Amino acid sequence: MVERVYICDLKSHIGKKATLGGWIHSVRKQGKIVFILLRDRTGIAQIITEPSTVKEQDLRNETVIYATGTVLEDKRAEGGVELSLSGVTVLAQPSKKLPIFVNDKAVFQKLELETMLNNRVLSLRNPKRNLIFKLQADIIDSFRNYLRAEGFTEVSTPKIIATGTEGGTQLFSVDYFDKLSYLAQSPQFYKQMLVGSGYERVFEIGHVYRAEEHNTSRHLNEYVSLDYEMGFIENEHDVMDVEEGFIIQLFERLNRDHAHTLQLYGQSLPAPRNIPRMPIKEACAILEKEYGKRSKGYDLDPEGEKLICEWVKKHHDTELLFLTEYPLSKRPVYTMPLESDREFTRSFDLLFRGLEITTGGQRIHDYQMLVDAFASQGLDHTEFDYYIDTFAYGMPPHGGLAIGLERITAQILGLTNIREASIFPRDRGRIVP
Amino acid sequence: MVERVYICDLKSHIGKKATLGGWIHSVRKQGKIVFILLRDRTGIAQIITEPSTVKEQDLRNETVIYATGTVLEDKRAEGGVELSLSGVTVLAQPSKKLPIFVNDKAVFQKLELETMLNNRVLSLRNPKRNLIFKLQADIIDSFRNYLRAEGFTEVSTPKIIATGTEGGTQLFSVDYFDKLSYLAQSPQFYKQMLVGSGYERVFEIGHVYRAEEHNTSRHLNEYVSLDYEMGFIENEHDVMDVEEGFIIQLFERLNRDHAHTLQLYGQSLPAPRNIPRMPIKEACAILEKEYGKRSKGYDLDPEGEKLICEWVKKHHDTELLFLTEYPLSKRPVYTMPLESDREFTRSFDLLFRGLEITTGGQRIHDYQMLVDAFASQGLDHTEFDYYIDTFAYGMPPHGGLAIGLERITAQILGLTNIREASIFPRDRGRIVP
Repeated sequence: MVERVYICDLKSHIGKKATLGGWIHSVRKQGKIVFILLRDRTGIAQIITEPSTVKEQDLRNETVIYATGTVLEDKRAEGGVELSLSGVTVLAQPSKKLPIFVNDKAVFQKLELETMLNNRVLSLRNPKRNLIFKLQADIIDSFRNYLRAEGFTEVSTPKIIATGTEGGTQLFSVDYFDKLSYLAQSPQFYKQMLVGSGYERVFEIGHVYRAEEHNTSRHLNEYVSLDYEMGFIENEHDVMDVEEGFIIQLFERLNRDHAHTLQLYGQSLPAPRNIPRMPIKEACAILEKEYGKRSKGYDLDPEGEKLICEWVKKHHDTELLFLTEYPLSKRPVYTMPLESDREFTRSFDLLFRGLEITTGGQRIHDYQMLVDAFASQGLDHTEFDYYIDTFAYGMPPHGGLAIGLERITAQILGLTNIREASIFPRDRGRIVP
Repeated sequence: MVERVYICDLKSHIGKKATLGGWIHSVRKQGKIVFILLRDRTGIAQIITEPSTVKEQDLRNETVIYATGTVLEDKRAEGGVELSLSGVTVLAQPSKKLPIFVNDKAVFQKLELETMLNNRVLSLRNPKRNLIFKLQADIIDSFRNYLRAEGFTEVSTPKIIATGTEGGTQLFSVDYFDKLSYLAQSPQFYKQMLVGSGYERVFEIGHVYRAEEHNTSRHLNEYVSLDYEMGFIENEHDVMDVEEGFIIQLFERLNRDHAHTLQLYGQSLPAPRNIPRMPIKEACAILEKEYGKRSKGYDLDPEGEKLICEWVKKHHDTELLFLTEYPLSKRPVYTMPLESDREFTRSFDLLFRGLEITTGGQRIHDYQMLVDAFASQGLDHTEFDYYIDTFAYGMPPHGGLAIGLERITAQILGLTNIREASIFPRDRGRIVP
């Protein structure tokens, strides 16, 4: 490796020689001085030089260079330092006209979503866009660290499967040799099986696939699901307790480590001490009373989710809300019913700023109860023997949840379309790039 | 949650009351005493009681219970402690006859691979099998921690893609609405694009898919790939340096944290200080001279990989070997040729105990050179514009690699079939469970 100083460390090299590496972000001439902004993965630095030191053709935007020089203090430059150039090595020059500008805020912000995604490599070079996925990487890291500390084992379950987890709808089919198979819409069955395999507590960070026909700003057809499942619970509240702990720790970390990014996006994150829990029945009653909004069969549409979040923000000063006890008819067949009213379930969603970012609950762990539940929905349980048999061999009470990574990212940064929170999104019309 | 003591912590509760939770591993009566072995995710503990304290039907193997009692010192019991039972709560009883034994070493070891995989939930309950995936989770964790510390950003790239990375062979096709699409056989193109998006250093832990027709003990059709890609390198040796650092740290950690597992599997891991690097030409010459084995076109078959590892073990006391400079004809089209001999490339494999566990190299970063390389293989580069255009906008020299998670796991533990190192393997014939 060339011995290279990262831009974020430049300040500790004042008075010394240093070599920077990166992309030319912009070039400006002023009298006899050339000001170059160089961009690397840690920031942007000012380089000053004279026109004679460097060839004009090597100074086009997005040229990749090593720049060697002396580090000077300069209070007017970003970061308070700059590099006085002595030599340049060109690593790569753009060979085509750039289809979009990387460095122009005004142009960039007006960019259509489609143009931005079609030119993903260039649009991600924009420092503000780039930061989205550094923050996202830290969401993943927080999830993993929190769960590992709580005794969860990380697992990788198959995405090529023989049967869907929710009855065969919304599945993409795969031509798997001579077998009909599908892409997993959730690791649900497998994570339950792994609880029953003696791991007790497992988590997975992986892709899931939903063949939903509708193209909305909230849906992707391939997305990253942060999943966990835990055994030996008393009820669904144990599952929520773990998520509450995770969210509190996540927001603390993002407020600390991503303050600059949050500020760029005009966002500040709450520092919750707990997350209120409200039965869906109660939420529907509030919506009807306060907003005159009637909800069909105790479920909320996107507007209902927004309104109930507005209400708890006003009355409980929180941007996070667990809605609990959804009706049986709205939840998957393996959801544990409430003993007190078997039309409702031990389930929950987590809403954040008006959007559902998590679905979870306690699952049925009794073999016969599960067989009966499948039968009551007209499902042939023998198709699912590989899953249901697990429950015939001693399964502890358990539950879990799934967090949509792109959704939580979008809500944290106030992105209006979930595609902005996916590096290379897949939707109804897009499989390229 | 029920306040529960994990078996690994039992020793710190001597003389106190404690509740354990887990599966009944075995029951043995001796005179007026019943000895129960209880298994949780942290270990196995002995429970003693009298026949009158607990019902016979609650003592069947694999019944899930909470067991409350007093913790006693007992030097004859495993871990030096046991629980003197005062009460049992049954959480779940097996409702079918167990198809395989969980607790019988002899039966378990003789179990056919197919039977073991068909009964995956039960076979994973066997403590020795169970530990495989706890060790595997720590391989993933080590990879991630090492790369994060080296400034890599974790990314998730799409698995539903429009074109293959290596020319359209070995791809599973997906019915994606009205579009023909495939499952990604590698995140190769995307990780390169992300280096060029300004992240410079990225890694991904995710599934990849290979529609290989052959069913061997070394191949899976879906496996987990540990991938990284890094920019601003001088050559492929920078990529190997990072892997060397990772492997050294990984083996140190496994020797420290998984000593018991390694011992159970009869393995001990080397503590390398570096990994030798040998051009494939040299390896082929050694094989011919020392073993009379001629290799076709400077490539090794499985036997060749075994023999060269045998040779370096004998002569250099190492179980790890980088083979470098593979011929152009054996590597993907985007591989950087050697300047000194353009029939060979800046590429490498890492062999460990006779098996290739990594493939990597430096990639072409010049636009025209890449276009020409695609053309020379008869590939229509316009199909790959979304990838190749990246190189027209300023791409630093870069390279990367992929480690097969199941392969490295299998080699570490001496598993003879890679399926044993996949929780729910997918092969030519298996998509269930």
